[in-house]
Amino acid sequence: MRILNKLTDYRDLKDMSRGALDFLCQDIREEIIRVVTKNGGHLASSLGAVELIVALLRQFNPLEDRIIFDVGHQAYAYKILTDRKDQFATLRQWGGISGFPKREESPCDHFNVGHSSTSLSAALGYCKARDIQNQKHHVVAVIGDGALLNGLSFEALNYTKDAHTKVIYILNDNKMSIGHRVGGFASHLAKLSSSQAYNSLKKYIKESCASIPQGQSIENVLAKFKDHIKSLVKPDNIFDELDINYWGPFDGHNIEEMETVLKMAKSYHKSVLIHVVTKKGKGLPCAEKHPDTYHGVPVNGFVKKTTGTSWSASATEVLCSMAEKDSRIVCLTAAMKNGTRLDEFALRFPDRFFDVGIAEEHMLTMAAGMAAGGLRPVVFIYSTFLQRAMDQLAHDIALQDLPVVIAVDRGGLVGEDGETHQGLFDIAWCKTIPNVNMLIPRDRIDLEKAFQFGLAHHKPTIIRYSRGIAPEAIIRHETTPALSPFQSEILMDGKEWTLIGMGATIDLCLKSRERAIEEGVPAPSVMDLRCAKPLDWTTLDKTLQKDNLVIILEEGYKFGGVGEAIASRSAEFAFKARVLPLGIPDLFVPHGTPAIQREYCGLTYQRVVNCYKEEAQRKSR
Amino acid sequence: MRILNKLTDYRDLKDMSRGALDFLCQDIREEIIRVVTKNGGHLASSLGAVELIVALLRQFNPLEDRIIFDVGHQAYAYKILTDRKDQFATLRQWGGISGFPKREESPCDHFNVGHSSTSLSAALGYCKARDIQNQKHHVVAVIGDGALLNGLSFEALNYTKDAHTKVIYILNDNKMSIGHRVGGFASHLAKLSSSQAYNSLKKYIKESCASIPQGQSIENVLAKFKDHIKSLVKPDNIFDELDINYWGPFDGHNIEEMETVLKMAKSYHKSVLIHVVTKKGKGLPCAEKHPDTYHGVPVNGFVKKTTGTSWSASATEVLCSMAEKDSRIVCLTAAMKNGTRLDEFALRFPDRFFDVGIAEEHMLTMAAGMAAGGLRPVVFIYSTFLQRAMDQLAHDIALQDLPVVIAVDRGGLVGEDGETHQGLFDIAWCKTIPNVNMLIPRDRIDLEKAFQFGLAHHKPTIIRYSRGIAPEAIIRHETTPALSPFQSEILMDGKEWTLIGMGATIDLCLKSRERAIEEGVPAPSVMDLRCAKPLDWTTLDKTLQKDNLVIILEEGYKFGGVGEAIASRSAEFAFKARVLPLGIPDLFVPHGTPAIQREYCGLTYQRVVNCYKEEAQRKSR
Repeated sequence: MRILNKLTDYRDLKDMSRGALDFLCQDIREEIIRVVTKNGGHLASSLGAVELIVALLRQFNPLEDRIIFDVGHQAYAYKILTDRKDQFATLRQWGGISGFPKREESPCDHFNVGHSSTSLSAALGYCKARDIQNQKHHVVAVIGDGALLNGLSFEALNYTKDAHTKVIYILNDNKMSIGHRVGGFASHLAKLSSSQAYNSLKKYIKESCASIPQGQSIENVLAKFKDHIKSLVKPDNIFDELDINYWGPFDGHNIEEMETVLKMAKSYHKSVLIHVVTKKGKGLPCAEKHPDTYHGVPVNGFVKKTTGTSWSASATEVLCSMAEKDSRIVCLTAAMKNGTRLDEFALRFPDRFFDVGIAEEHMLTMAAGMAAGGLRPVVFIYSTFLQRAMDQLAHDIALQDLPVVIAVDRGGLVGEDGETHQGLFDIAWCKTIPNVNMLIPRDRIDLEKAFQFGLAHHKPTIIRYSRGIAPEAIIRHETTPALSPFQSEILMDGKEWTLIGMGATIDLCLKSRERAIEEGVPAPSVMDLRCAKPLDWTTLDKTLQKDNLVIILEEGYKFGGVGEAIASRSAEFAFKARVLPLGIPDLFVPHGTPAIQREYCGLTYQRVVNCYKEEAQRKSR
Repeated sequence: MRILNKLTDYRDLKDMSRGALDFLCQDIREEIIRVVTKNGGHLASSLGAVELIVALLRQFNPLEDRIIFDVGHQAYAYKILTDRKDQFATLRQWGGISGFPKREESPCDHFNVGHSSTSLSAALGYCKARDIQNQKHHVVAVIGDGALLNGLSFEALNYTKDAHTKVIYILNDNKMSIGHRVGGFASHLAKLSSSQAYNSLKKYIKESCASIPQGQSIENVLAKFKDHIKSLVKPDNIFDELDINYWGPFDGHNIEEMETVLKMAKSYHKSVLIHVVTKKGKGLPCAEKHPDTYHGVPVNGFVKKTTGTSWSASATEVLCSMAEKDSRIVCLTAAMKNGTRLDEFALRFPDRFFDVGIAEEHMLTMAAGMAAGGLRPVVFIYSTFLQRAMDQLAHDIALQDLPVVIAVDRGGLVGEDGETHQGLFDIAWCKTIPNVNMLIPRDRIDLEKAFQFGLAHHKPTIIRYSRGIAPEAIIRHETTPALSPFQSEILMDGKEWTLIGMGATIDLCLKSRERAIEEGVPAPSVMDLRCAKPLDWTTLDKTLQKDNLVIILEEGYKFGGVGEAIASRSAEFAFKARVLPLGIPDLFVPHGTPAIQREYCGLTYQRVVNCYKEEAQRKSR
């Protein structure tokens, strides 16, 4: 790490020799591996983009020029080289630097990101802002091949011509999405990246750079390049057909070659897409070999995990056993096969497994078509990415009341991925949509029941669960009659007050109850809501009529959440209970551990107990 | 109308002569013009697709084969020819047939639609359902060129190869979106549609059809076609690059030619995209000349309108006058220049006006980039289409707290376009998003203030208004001190109870108050909420503490709406008031006049007065 240690920031790059730059890249890789294997994060993509970022920072001024990274998980080297070398060890920790680009963090970050495929549109917006204000800087979007295949990217590609501006797109093609990339466009990219132009141009650049005669300006050489490129670029590629100048492919690990091309792009009078080929996981042999496995690395990545089965794995387990018996069951994911643990389903039922790539909208509408055609589709998706397909859920699935099961993973607070990845909107917006049912299991037993119900029932059914380990069983009274999935359940009896939880907050309810008893406060009843839509008013009304205080604990925004709906019911029917919906306050929740995030949001047992005390005090006044 | 009158349904088409078919198409056009100019509806697109639909119904069985129309506003001829000839006069009327395909209406409709670009994904879903269940029918998606340019369509095009199925896409290319189509892909389509292949193939088909020797099977001729097509299709087109067989272009008004091609597509062993060129507005000279003006025709389309300025036009007026003074103001629309009345802005500020085509996601993210770059973007969008860009609002605009103004048009009940176009979700889901402000003006005075505020303020600001005429001024007390846009306003004082409205429901509040007085019930106070986020708790709390009954009237879903938030507040703070949130109940609201829809949803002054009476009775018990 000798060179990295001596470096102040990107300004020092300009004077470094080729050899020193190579050592620096090695240092940066080591630093990324060191921090990410400890803090967790996106490893393979970041390792692949090191030389590209060095080349960008030698050719562009990150304060003036707008370099916009798509998704952003490839940008760790950029963070290290722009103001954040010393803070890099705090990556993804509470109060530390974010795992994604963030304007609040550095004047070199120009667009906050975390979700895929926003960079081209954002760059076009920045370009028009520059043009209209008569500014002169460059705007560069760096996008991966997986992100390029999303509809939002396509809309931006399509609009590029009509935007009448100059933008530089860099396609960082590591031949992967999060997993394997999908579709006809992906094959097209593969064809382009193996085209003759590459080797031929590479040779030409080498020769030209070696032979710039003393005194001859670089401009003359560049002019020659332009003509050469023109003749090399194959005419039949999609970008050219969309009227975007395509240059490439180039070697994304050759800094010199990339700098030459970037220099050309800067002086070129039109927009250009530069196709750069890199290796995901570059420099770490295991990550080069298994780039999908090393896409994201959990906290203490190489340390053995705690025991227990995750919610994701539990869901797949249930689904596989049901798919065995019902051949209509099919399963869809949008580039999240690993994240949602669908590997086993894909292996056992390859003809009924569909990974559509990063294309959430298409996935939901295709699932609607499948259901209309008689299948039983189950869509696996992270809560935060379901936001991408709100209209497809409302307009294509719910309006036709189609039996699609949507397994919403990472509902609630997700931890280190932070603001962009929190699953906090889902309860609020999904429950406004007619025909939709929403089940929130508390343990593996209810999870199984939820899937059984969802696949038997003829309606859109959302099953929401959180990140992490799924409890095997929480308070199972053998004598209790079987409940319908729409019924709420009193888990523990209490006096005067009730705590209502769902999914991950059941644990908080139970801990709050213990705490109450410890503090000599009457023990509250604990209710598992189980179903966020429809709400079980029969059970809920009884509690609202009987108790003085009802507190709803919800890992979802308070505004529009179920807590508000239950409180509203109390005011509507003039019930006895004072109702406190304790959900997530009206702000974006930064990265950190889920425990810290819960405390930040006031979802603590101490607060719950204090609420009781305050209410008792108020009543006694 | 002689031939149409005699026809039972599509089954009769099979035996008709070429000449009779031409007359039938003329009859169908007359019927469409007759009904649409009376009931309102989508005229130009429907007129352009008549021959195409006749050809489809001669070549496919609409009960077995799945013909899926994109958007659906081109499918009136299909409705007339499949079971709904006699009901066609009820088009878009309450209880009558819908303006869009609807499964509940006919077994020939296979996918409900209204929003753009869902057909390819839905068709792929239907194909996989067929394959997995070993069925044999055909699946056909009919999509316009405007709809094809959306990201969702692209995701489906990209996935077509990996779906490993046989699907027939028909690109109905009328060279228009709702207005002019946009982008590089559009230019590409134009290039394709003028290619040599068209004339050459047309000639070949004519010759071959004329010369089928007695006894020789059509199969032999088709086999020859295939080879011929192969040699004609140009290699450099985007569809071929995506590994989708491209055939075309063909004349979409020549039934014979289309039938020949459809027959070939049926027997072809792979998926195919058939490019058909039609004329939007065909058969009605004024619509052929101004296809954008005749895209949608209002109820009693050719009768002079009532006086007054619409909300849409009022908004543009304000914007134009502000843009005159501030050169940072730019304006964006997604193919809704006419619908949102932006013509004047586009004329006066052509360099600051951006019509991105049907690409709502891209529009919002580009606006985010513009705002980050120092501009003041104003996005005009229908409430129902904003659902398409939920994540772009949350992740790209709100998370960065960027000053984008979103003018949400058609908020609330929209009338004849029905279920798919109601603007009923917006209040609920927008208000869960941190950093977002949401203003709902009641008249043109507040609308102007809202724009002034939104463009001065450094936050995402939604300004929501409804379809129809904007009142000039509603209850303006000259003595009242100027309110901030976040403040609610007591419009009329009353006793015991308060009605809270916003935007279009202010009128209902005032009428309910009149009705109460007529019925001898105490006059309620009337409050204009003005701002749905943040809520003005200072003003609201006073009312909740003082009154016995507070009713919130909201043209938005009750679940998650502001009504619920206000009721929840009352339960949370144990305020005195019983609170009734009267919003839209948990169902999709069908097409009809807004007045009927309001009654259907229980938003009537009679219900409001009854609520008071019931509460008085309950209290006296």
